[in-house]
Amino acid sequence: MNDSSAGKAFELPIRVYIEDTDAGGIVFHAKYLHYMERARTEWVRSQGVGLRAGLEHNISYVVQKMNLHFRAPAKLDDQLLVTAELKEASRVWMGFRQRVFGAEDRRLLCEADVRVACIALDTGKPRRLPENMQQILKNFI
Amino acid sequence: MNDSSAGKAFELPIRVYIEDTDAGGIVFHAKYLHYMERARTEWVRSQGVGLRAGLEHNISYVVQKMNLHFRAPAKLDDQLLVTAELKEASRVWMGFRQRVFGAEDRRLLCEADVRVACIALDTGKPRRLPENMQQILKNFI
Amino acid sequence: MNDSSAGKAFELPIRVYIEDTDAGGIVFHAKYLHYMERARTEWVRSQGVGLRAGLEHNISYVVQKMNLHFRAPAKLDDQLLVTAELKEASRVWMGFRQRVFGAEDRRLLCEADVRVACIALDTGKPRRLPENMQQILKNFI
Amino acid sequence: MNDSSAGKAFELPIRVYIEDTDAGGIVFHAKYLHYMERARTEWVRSQGVGLRAGLEHNISYVVQKMNLHFRAPAKLDDQLLVTAELKEASRVWMGFRQRVFGAEDRRLLCEADVRVACIALDTGKPRRLPENMQQILKNFI
Repeated sequence: MNDSSAGKAFELPIRVYIEDTDAGGIVFHAKYLHYMERARTEWVRSQGVGLRAGLEHNISYVVQKMNLHFRAPAKLDDQLLVTAELKEASRVWMGFRQRVFGAEDRRLLCEADVRVACIALDTGKPRRLPENMQQILKNFI
Repeated sequence: MNDSSAGKAFELPIRVYIEDTDAGGIVFHAKYLHYMERARTEWVRSQGVGLRAGLEHNISYVVQKMNLHFRAPAKLDDQLLVTAELKEASRVWMGFRQRVFGAEDRRLLCEADVRVACIALDTGKPRRLPENMQQILKNFI
Repeated sequence: MNDSSAGKAFELPIRVYIEDTDAGGIVFHAKYLHYMERARTEWVRSQGVGLRAGLEHNISYVVQKMNLHFRAPAKLDDQLLVTAELKEASRVWMGFRQRVFGAEDRRLLCEADVRVACIALDTGKPRRLPENMQQILKNFI
Repeated sequence: MNDSSAGKAFELPIRVYIEDTDAGGIVFHAKYLHYMERARTEWVRSQGVGLRAGLEHNISYVVQKMNLHFRAPAKLDDQLLVTAELKEASRVWMGFRQRVFGAEDRRLLCEADVRVACIALDTGKPRRLPENMQQILKNFI
């Protein structure tokens, strides 16, 4: 158990730009998937794992399942906090709980359960999580 | 019951462009939400309802919930078929079943249940589906 | 000179979806680059060349220069026509003139000169346009 | 002349995520426009001006012209620096010089001249830059 990381959700600050909004005046719903993917990426980076290095070793990650609840809209200029919390894992996938909050009032805007599978980049077939990722998982689950 | 439309899922052909792909060589997962939103939009348009006309009358639609299963990746140049099938509705929301197929082999790539709520554009608060949309729903549910 | 294609700009119909718009109520400016890229892609496809097949042979295309003039905004639900017209070429690049029109009134919304270079996918270095592309260019310039 | 800000280009660090890349393994060209728009937004924010507050007062900004040179590709996980430097202005528009660098080696990846016009949100017609923006311009030009 890694005391410094266990039990806390990783949190990434993200600003809402005009590119993220739509003619309804709010953040386009698909953009929350971008935000969540950035948070997962920064979490693995904070653990010493880079996605590009993975691709160079034929390792890629794909979202397999997502269960999303959009609770309240984010708007232009909003400062958000996006979490990534590892909840479960198998030999080939990781299960995250992710949430998007308004940074000021900690209001919950969106939440999701996300399953990310590891695949071989060339074949697209599932493969075992690489050694460095397995070591990280041990500190979180 | 409208014989011409009932029982069939609306289907929109969509081409995969380089903008839709990522460094993993496949369509970025959030893009399927764009594809599904386009299919819902074209379905309502095929029923005579335009989104922009709605905005001009303070009517907007937002995705509230999505349950997604990404089954197989789409790739650059692929021709897809994206369905939108109304499954249920309340006074303020519609529930769709949506699927993304490869056009050639009818292989299922992605499927989702999507709940879309009607809101007032200015306040963001839920409101009753407008009269024209309610009439359409009667033909499908 | 190929009479059937010379002297006419290739034209692709594109619909504006909510994903394309921003909180200013108009199409986000970067989206026109997507539209233009789609038009170039469909033009080469209409000439028998697929981008994915190119990637599989280590051939990729990148935009090197763009000179854009945004004249009037497109809006949600608008039907557009996006042109791609080959104007010049060297051994390693192609120069296009592209325009975005409103489909109904043929109003010019955006125009651009675009230089697209051919590169080797693995090294990123410029390379000669492949044989099939060179043959196509002969019909247009 | 404001000594603290004059003569220096505003600089925003931006990370490249998988969403920004395409099947060619590099950042999709249109994404640089997003990066540049973020840098302009953070520059005005650093001067005390928020875009959302503008929209609420019927003030919007649109890109009118862009002259882009894509020099070298950014890739997944790259850390970038994106500049925004005000070069000229009229009563209704501002002209920026913008550049995208690799953060580590300060290699120039993309550069652009960008003209941004002020418009009335409701009519889309050009309007005088608001008072707070005019005050800012005095410190930079």
